[in-house]
Amino acid sequence: MIAAQTLLQTLVDAGVEVCFANPGTSEMHLVAAVDRVPGMRPVLGLFEGAVTGMSDGYARMAGKPAANLLHLGPGLANGLANLHNARRAGSPVVNIVGDHATYHHQYDAPLASDIVGLARPMSAWVHSSRSAGQLAADGARAVQAAQQHPGQVATLIVPADVAWLEADHPAPPLPVPEPAPVGDDAVTAAATALRSGHAALLLRGSVLQGEGLVAAGRIAAATGCRLLCDTFAPRLERGAGRVVVERLPYFAEQLVDTLAAVEQLVLVGATPPVAFFAYPGKPSWCSPDGCRITHLAHPHEDGTGALRALADLLGAPATGSTVADHRVADGASGRWDQFGIGQSIARHLPEGAIVADEAATSSLGPALALSTAAPHDVLSLTGGSIGQGLPVAAGAAVACPDRKVVCLHGDGGAMYTLQTLWTMAREQLDVTTVIFANRSYAILNIELMRVGAEAGAGALSMLDLGNPALDWVSLAHGMGVEAVRVDSLDAFDDAFAAAIVCRGPRLVEAVL
Amino acid sequence: MIAAQTLLQTLVDAGVEVCFANPGTSEMHLVAAVDRVPGMRPVLGLFEGAVTGMSDGYARMAGKPAANLLHLGPGLANGLANLHNARRAGSPVVNIVGDHATYHHQYDAPLASDIVGLARPMSAWVHSSRSAGQLAADGARAVQAAQQHPGQVATLIVPADVAWLEADHPAPPLPVPEPAPVGDDAVTAAATALRSGHAALLLRGSVLQGEGLVAAGRIAAATGCRLLCDTFAPRLERGAGRVVVERLPYFAEQLVDTLAAVEQLVLVGATPPVAFFAYPGKPSWCSPDGCRITHLAHPHEDGTGALRALADLLGAPATGSTVADHRVADGASGRWDQFGIGQSIARHLPEGAIVADEAATSSLGPALALSTAAPHDVLSLTGGSIGQGLPVAAGAAVACPDRKVVCLHGDGGAMYTLQTLWTMAREQLDVTTVIFANRSYAILNIELMRVGAEAGAGALSMLDLGNPALDWVSLAHGMGVEAVRVDSLDAFDDAFAAAIVCRGPRLVEAVL
Repeated sequence: MIAAQTLLQTLVDAGVEVCFANPGTSEMHLVAAVDRVPGMRPVLGLFEGAVTGMSDGYARMAGKPAANLLHLGPGLANGLANLHNARRAGSPVVNIVGDHATYHHQYDAPLASDIVGLARPMSAWVHSSRSAGQLAADGARAVQAAQQHPGQVATLIVPADVAWLEADHPAPPLPVPEPAPVGDDAVTAAATALRSGHAALLLRGSVLQGEGLVAAGRIAAATGCRLLCDTFAPRLERGAGRVVVERLPYFAEQLVDTLAAVEQLVLVGATPPVAFFAYPGKPSWCSPDGCRITHLAHPHEDGTGALRALADLLGAPATGSTVADHRVADGASGRWDQFGIGQSIARHLPEGAIVADEAATSSLGPALALSTAAPHDVLSLTGGSIGQGLPVAAGAAVACPDRKVVCLHGDGGAMYTLQTLWTMAREQLDVTTVIFANRSYAILNIELMRVGAEAGAGALSMLDLGNPALDWVSLAHGMGVEAVRVDSLDAFDDAFAAAIVCRGPRLVEAVL
Repeated sequence: MIAAQTLLQTLVDAGVEVCFANPGTSEMHLVAAVDRVPGMRPVLGLFEGAVTGMSDGYARMAGKPAANLLHLGPGLANGLANLHNARRAGSPVVNIVGDHATYHHQYDAPLASDIVGLARPMSAWVHSSRSAGQLAADGARAVQAAQQHPGQVATLIVPADVAWLEADHPAPPLPVPEPAPVGDDAVTAAATALRSGHAALLLRGSVLQGEGLVAAGRIAAATGCRLLCDTFAPRLERGAGRVVVERLPYFAEQLVDTLAAVEQLVLVGATPPVAFFAYPGKPSWCSPDGCRITHLAHPHEDGTGALRALADLLGAPATGSTVADHRVADGASGRWDQFGIGQSIARHLPEGAIVADEAATSSLGPALALSTAAPHDVLSLTGGSIGQGLPVAAGAAVACPDRKVVCLHGDGGAMYTLQTLWTMAREQLDVTTVIFANRSYAILNIELMRVGAEAGAGALSMLDLGNPALDWVSLAHGMGVEAVRVDSLDAFDDAFAAAIVCRGPRLVEAVL
């Protein structure tokens, strides 16, 4: 068999079941191998940012990597922004990039570029395969590298001849790396910290799901500490019956206020809270002076195990204290704004839904209302590179075909990877997308004031998306997704409810 | 004044008049400076690939750089594919990327990444500015670096505090670098080569315009040599009255056939012809065995001056031999295919039009017909990274507001940067776009066979864009561009003629 086939079989044997792809000529043997290797589902994206964002969404929900298949340096480049988000999410991603044949490099053909150089900034692991006989083993190493806890981007570059030459056989899967265990000293130090003043646990990563979250709730019950997560948690279990975690606010001065009373900050898979951007005269470091910071678990360590050990050490009760009620509005009511829309979404959200949130300045309303909705998972914009919500939603829908996915998106951000709507239609993914159409880079109008820049008409026009107004119903129809535009709460409630009860992709444009 | 303003003023003083932008928080002071510095036109793109592609198209037509304004590493990453094309075009581009404030780097905030590392592969010059007082001078150096002959990508990274702090004054423009002169020896060697057998001049860069092309025509008249240009010339003057240059074919075996009789190949701003991709058992090097290659002018050298000197040395007549006739069809006739469409386009093309060609497998028909159309410029896909045609067309329209721009685009490629349609509508750019809707990555169906990959249904489905069919009329309407779908030659002819006579963006979807 040719090496391309040994690679694909190796990936399948290692548990990789989906390949998100936007291939070109140099990847044709890998594409052709799809038909010879059962167990690999190819999912086509019409732009690489859609491809890499889908693999991130998939990984966050499946808890294991999918593969990407990208075309040479420029194809990788188009996917880098969402690999940045995946990197910040700690998502396992096996990122395969085709290259020119090894002997073709010397000619500097038009599509040649420094692929390793492009891959490096967004990849924890980069390897350019050098021989057909080694390709399968390289693939096994890539899958292993991607699964280094909590998950990382592993980029395997495959020259065309390395893929098309003959090879012997697939490579056996390598062991999945376990997260590093947390020592007793760290657990004891955390216990001491939590007993020594106003304390908070700041959680990130898989500790915001399942057992980790339950253990955190037990610790809060035993010590009265606050439970915090950062603004952009990769995946957060929320809603009725779930342990309540406070999400830190986005703006630095709000962050400072929120943390003002914290004397002891215990980190579990998280880093200390800092400002998202620097602003003249405002702090970047947002923990209060004198606040002591204790690391219970670093991101590569077993945070869930550490939380369990800490709860036991503290003699915490078996169940946590503060879990959310189930409380939603009876009907559509309130103003036509993100808060009214949030209540409508919360009312109709089915249990087990997955909410991909890139609503930016419109996300507060839905987030508040959803806190007491049916239990669900929230996936957020981890790396701040906008254009991640649609593909993360699509990838989550591929990973969890039996769960409803709701994508909440600002109009400006959604334009970066709108091509994802086509994949949703092609694969009939069960995603309801809400576009918050304020026809503006609204966040930048706020940031413009906050950085102290005095803007005139020319500058303000650069933040305005209203001329011409984007028509999301037409854009969705252009890619085969049913869509409707609404500009009242009643109409939104009807449209959203209708989208939720049917299966397959729907889009609701909420003109604000 | 703040440093941002000194930078902008420096750019304007150095002749940079347009800034294509997709800014974020870290660029707000640069955005605000637009209102304080007369003479800089900001053009907003809704995706960075549109931004960088527009600056490429602008540079190819204006012969001088525009500036880009991009947001941090991910914003740069989204623009890299079209910077790759710009790099391969030899286009001068001043690529400005905002960064976190210098003192904010240490916190590794979510949007932080290795911007220098990302910029390097697609930039000939990269500098991260370190002080407000130096920023203006850094800007002057960037403009100079961009204009290193024939033109290159110069990336200036601007930390937010470097932009927002006070600075003294703008920096004076630095001299525009002249192309290196070609020595007499090279001219003599080229003359000898052209007299020593079946000879061809392979031309690339500005020699395909104006004086260079005229001199090449004189040389052909004097020696009988063939005039060739590569498949993807950045800018080529074509049509009635222009010196005829043979465009080399794309596929390696056709390239080998075309060059088979060439014994002396003289390069002017070009590199030896090689295969675009490697294929099993096919050559990468496409010049015939024994063919002697002579460099008259390297890309950084003054090819036009060298051609003039060569023509004089050869005692060539004052005007060249082979110029194209003006010959177009009387009415719409022929089959409903790219050849019929090409004849219709040629018939209606106004003199001085600019044709941005990314029609891929549909480009042969238009290229044949346009060879005898009214004189025009052709801009092609220099780096092979698809998704360049729409933005190059838009940028050309910004550079040349009095010339009609025609964009010929495959449907697959157009999806990568379809956001450009919105900028065309916003700026009312005079661009008529023809989408060749074959609903397939047609080139990959051909390449699949050529690389010898045996594809099954799964593989073939990865090249098929027909499920669902993209609806380009809806997509264009969604971004404010008038559009019509046609599926017959008569309807196309009417729609194209109507688009050409009105001003502003129009799109014609030709369903093939």
